[in-house]
Amino acid sequence: MASSSRTLVRLAGSQLGTTAQRLHLPMSVSKPVTRSVAGFATTSCPRKPALPSPSALIASTRPVVSRQFQRCYADASPPPPKKKPGRIRSTFKWLRRFAYLSILGLVGGVAYDGYKDRHPDEQFPPDPQKKTLVVLGTGWGSVAFLKKLDTSNYNVIVISNRNYFLFTPLLPSCTTGQIEHRSIMEPVRQILRHKKAAVRFYEAEATQIDYERKVVKITDNSDIQGDVSETEVPYDMLVIGVGAENATFGIPGVREHSCFLKEIRDAQAIRTKIMDCVETAAFKDQTQEEVDRLLHMVVVGGGPTGVEFAGELRDFFDEDIKKLIPEIAPRFKVTLIEALPNVLPMFSKQLIDYTESTFKEEHIEIKTKTMVKRVTDKTVEAEVTGPDGKKSMVTIPYGLLVWATGNAVRPVVKDLMSRIPAQKDSRRGLAVNEYLVVQGTRDVWAVGDCAVAGYAPTAQVASQEGTFLAKLFNNMAMTETLENKIHELSAGLNLKPGNAAEVAQEIESAEKQLRRIKDIKPFQYSHQGSLAYIGSEKAVADVAWLNGNLATGGKLTYLFWRSIYLSMCFSTRNRVLVAMDWIKAKIYGRDVSRE
Amino acid sequence: MASSSRTLVRLAGSQLGTTAQRLHLPMSVSKPVTRSVAGFATTSCPRKPALPSPSALIASTRPVVSRQFQRCYADASPPPPKKKPGRIRSTFKWLRRFAYLSILGLVGGVAYDGYKDRHPDEQFPPDPQKKTLVVLGTGWGSVAFLKKLDTSNYNVIVISNRNYFLFTPLLPSCTTGQIEHRSIMEPVRQILRHKKAAVRFYEAEATQIDYERKVVKITDNSDIQGDVSETEVPYDMLVIGVGAENATFGIPGVREHSCFLKEIRDAQAIRTKIMDCVETAAFKDQTQEEVDRLLHMVVVGGGPTGVEFAGELRDFFDEDIKKLIPEIAPRFKVTLIEALPNVLPMFSKQLIDYTESTFKEEHIEIKTKTMVKRVTDKTVEAEVTGPDGKKSMVTIPYGLLVWATGNAVRPVVKDLMSRIPAQKDSRRGLAVNEYLVVQGTRDVWAVGDCAVAGYAPTAQVASQEGTFLAKLFNNMAMTETLENKIHELSAGLNLKPGNAAEVAQEIESAEKQLRRIKDIKPFQYSHQGSLAYIGSEKAVADVAWLNGNLATGGKLTYLFWRSIYLSMCFSTRNRVLVAMDWIKAKIYGRDVSRE
Repeated sequence: MASSSRTLVRLAGSQLGTTAQRLHLPMSVSKPVTRSVAGFATTSCPRKPALPSPSALIASTRPVVSRQFQRCYADASPPPPKKKPGRIRSTFKWLRRFAYLSILGLVGGVAYDGYKDRHPDEQFPPDPQKKTLVVLGTGWGSVAFLKKLDTSNYNVIVISNRNYFLFTPLLPSCTTGQIEHRSIMEPVRQILRHKKAAVRFYEAEATQIDYERKVVKITDNSDIQGDVSETEVPYDMLVIGVGAENATFGIPGVREHSCFLKEIRDAQAIRTKIMDCVETAAFKDQTQEEVDRLLHMVVVGGGPTGVEFAGELRDFFDEDIKKLIPEIAPRFKVTLIEALPNVLPMFSKQLIDYTESTFKEEHIEIKTKTMVKRVTDKTVEAEVTGPDGKKSMVTIPYGLLVWATGNAVRPVVKDLMSRIPAQKDSRRGLAVNEYLVVQGTRDVWAVGDCAVAGYAPTAQVASQEGTFLAKLFNNMAMTETLENKIHELSAGLNLKPGNAAEVAQEIESAEKQLRRIKDIKPFQYSHQGSLAYIGSEKAVADVAWLNGNLATGGKLTYLFWRSIYLSMCFSTRNRVLVAMDWIKAKIYGRDVSRE
Repeated sequence: MASSSRTLVRLAGSQLGTTAQRLHLPMSVSKPVTRSVAGFATTSCPRKPALPSPSALIASTRPVVSRQFQRCYADASPPPPKKKPGRIRSTFKWLRRFAYLSILGLVGGVAYDGYKDRHPDEQFPPDPQKKTLVVLGTGWGSVAFLKKLDTSNYNVIVISNRNYFLFTPLLPSCTTGQIEHRSIMEPVRQILRHKKAAVRFYEAEATQIDYERKVVKITDNSDIQGDVSETEVPYDMLVIGVGAENATFGIPGVREHSCFLKEIRDAQAIRTKIMDCVETAAFKDQTQEEVDRLLHMVVVGGGPTGVEFAGELRDFFDEDIKKLIPEIAPRFKVTLIEALPNVLPMFSKQLIDYTESTFKEEHIEIKTKTMVKRVTDKTVEAEVTGPDGKKSMVTIPYGLLVWATGNAVRPVVKDLMSRIPAQKDSRRGLAVNEYLVVQGTRDVWAVGDCAVAGYAPTAQVASQEGTFLAKLFNNMAMTETLENKIHELSAGLNLKPGNAAEVAQEIESAEKQLRRIKDIKPFQYSHQGSLAYIGSEKAVADVAWLNGNLATGGKLTYLFWRSIYLSMCFSTRNRVLVAMDWIKAKIYGRDVSRE
């Protein structure tokens, strides 16, 4: 095939070029092929291929074999290299996909949770044979208890004059409109609706606990009362979580003229009063002295509540009121009064210093070692202890006074304490043992601020106590069930000798289960840390870290503060509402309407 | 080239096939090529090409020319046709892009609006030389007036004891928690901050208007008062938009025992009372009779407010309370009392019938031709006129009574009317002429419910009156400016004869402008229609359409109702808040916490 050996096959340049490219053959456009391949002669290639493509050969009727076949690689322009997507572009693409999936996941999760919220599972009515467990209160202790309690083991009744759970850490934010009050309220009936067995709820105040007769007297003291507004509720087991009330330390004028900061109504009253002070200060012909007095906000109590409220107040004025009422805004002043030598006593020293310096920048005056002696409708009289130990009296004119300090024992708890001999030395609340049983009683437990367990009266302590108690109750119920089962089986063993081995095995398995659950250790509080917002988008945090503490302060800590509180919210609904409030306040500012 | 003519070129099947495809050549896989092309012999093609590709020819060192070249088209499998994106997929792609752009546009618009809200333009202080314009009230009439008024023409002072504007159509939704009250409140200072010239606002009640001395007496009657709580505000022009108060028609017990539905505090009180009734009904050992009474909600007034409130109440119970307190929910009852023969008298007959039949389905009892005579703390005594005209007394036990009817003249307006001789025959408010000037006075105008202009006392009328009056005032100011300018120029014309022609031209141009603006027609109310929500996600609408009316009712009308109210909201902030409330209520239901 000598002639064939001299035949050059010319293909459509592009196809060949592509093939050559795929085989990673070197391509050179400018010079003709000079490679000598056996059997192929080389000739120069014309720039433009003159020969038709092979397929055209089929279609064409003209004899084409006379055309010169030429293999032309040299002039075939290499196809543009296929671009690999750049790394940045690829990263963005994956980031975008991740963002979409996250948003979809978040929205889907919220929607699903909302659906589950509105369509809870069927509840079965409580078994009247079961023991009646009465829970007093709807605060941190009681609600943590109810959350973990298996209600199918008991006939549960909840009594409280407040039919919702309040997320108290965000209460100072409510006073200025940063958060709307409904965002931190969770109806207790909504909580109870999701329990296995139905739970009864009575909106009433427990007025007397008769621990000998095992009966609680309750009263409906709301505005609207029915024919029956007082009755008794018998119990087998009682959990007291009624908390504490505000203490005025016997100082005259506090209850009449100041605002507390404990409940939603307090926050709303404060919010209305702040704007009332501002509008009154802006009244026509108001004297300068009066304007200064009206715009002077005094906070008594240097704990986290007082500090956070002072910070929020300052933010409210700087970010919103200044813009809307610029003529009086410069005269606005916040003073924080504390009897101890410093604010935030439970925090580490550097955080206390940081808070005090931040307050100084924000023009919040801190008066430590200052003890309030008397309150009138326009002034606060306080005793200041100077650095030398000398005491002097000051009179501080104020427009709004907020009392953010002091817990006092509720009347119903005081009454119970007076009846129990073992409680006669207890002052601040019901003394409880390491299993939270009220000393000197049977079947009465206490959690939260009304209980004295050796810990500070905080939400964290109450929450952990409630969770512990629920575990205890669940165990007690399971223990009882297994013991009954063993008892029955043992009794049945004698009666039905036929399946003795089986029954013996069941008894053994039940005993094994029993041994596993019977051992509940006493309550041990584990301090997670303390957080406080100090204004200007800064916060301080003293958190437990490994075996020590981590103290941080600043803007990042503020983000941490927000995320922790968001995670601590009772339900997804609260989380969504709080997050939306923060966004709304950021975009539109706080609402200055006075209701 | 005879040998060449017999040479068949065999290419890699796919390449040729592709080429053949591109040239739209018929390809047949099964049979060999039988087409006779000049110079090419046809032979059968083996199924699998045995020859290497041309590029392999280059690389290969073996002589390949001895192989049989064969053009084999028949068995080359055609490449899969390149799919054109289907029409559906293309539509989805564009829909998706449209959705993204819409969402982006919406979010961007809201964010921009929020930014403008928080960063308003600089305001310049009012010119003390300008006339002092005092506006009383912050309702529909006053706020519509202030919105359109050019404040740079006057020294504007606004006086009201309510420092926010309330979007009243959504007030019934507030009573059950469908909407939060802050979503329909717009701080008036926020509104005024966006005006060209600064506007002063005093939160006080106008207690007396002395139209001869041209002075308004104002009093700060809020909880917190300064040293100065009463003063006088002189005016050059006065606009009265104080609205009306609730009328009790002298019926004993109404003011003491019923709830009005006019202000935010009313809505909040109603919300608290509804839950109070429910919780009291759920109290232990409550008698069945008491439960029935406590769960009986009575609404007096068959106008849009009463009808909407009854519908919202029913929704609240059916959608939320039933789920949380199932044991008492079946006993819940709503009764609507109306003295006239039917509800919604301003609507067309078929809509009235539709409303009444919908209420029947929803178990809302309508008692028409029923006039309340006396109210006690637990019962309503009413006189019913039977179909035969016979009157009889009924006693209706209730848990909550809402008084949604009747406007009465405010004391300050009554006092003013008593002083003006021309007003002695006026009963329902200040008689005004076609330019809304109070009869018998100079420089006093009135808008809204406190003015009697021959129209119904509705928000729509007040809003249109306010807008008209603003246009009037803007024109008056412009007129005065031009007249002054002409006067000055004319005076100057005699003094400076040098540029007489120029000045004459300026005078002529000013006169031309003057002619254009001087003519303001009298106020003419244009009724856009009436809307009312009737419960169960249905609404009725009677809207002006071309030259007639369009009456619709049902679920689509409900969507229309929602969109109209959303568009009528005062600001983007309100719109966003209301929309979020609706979404929140849909996902999580209404909050049953009792504050």
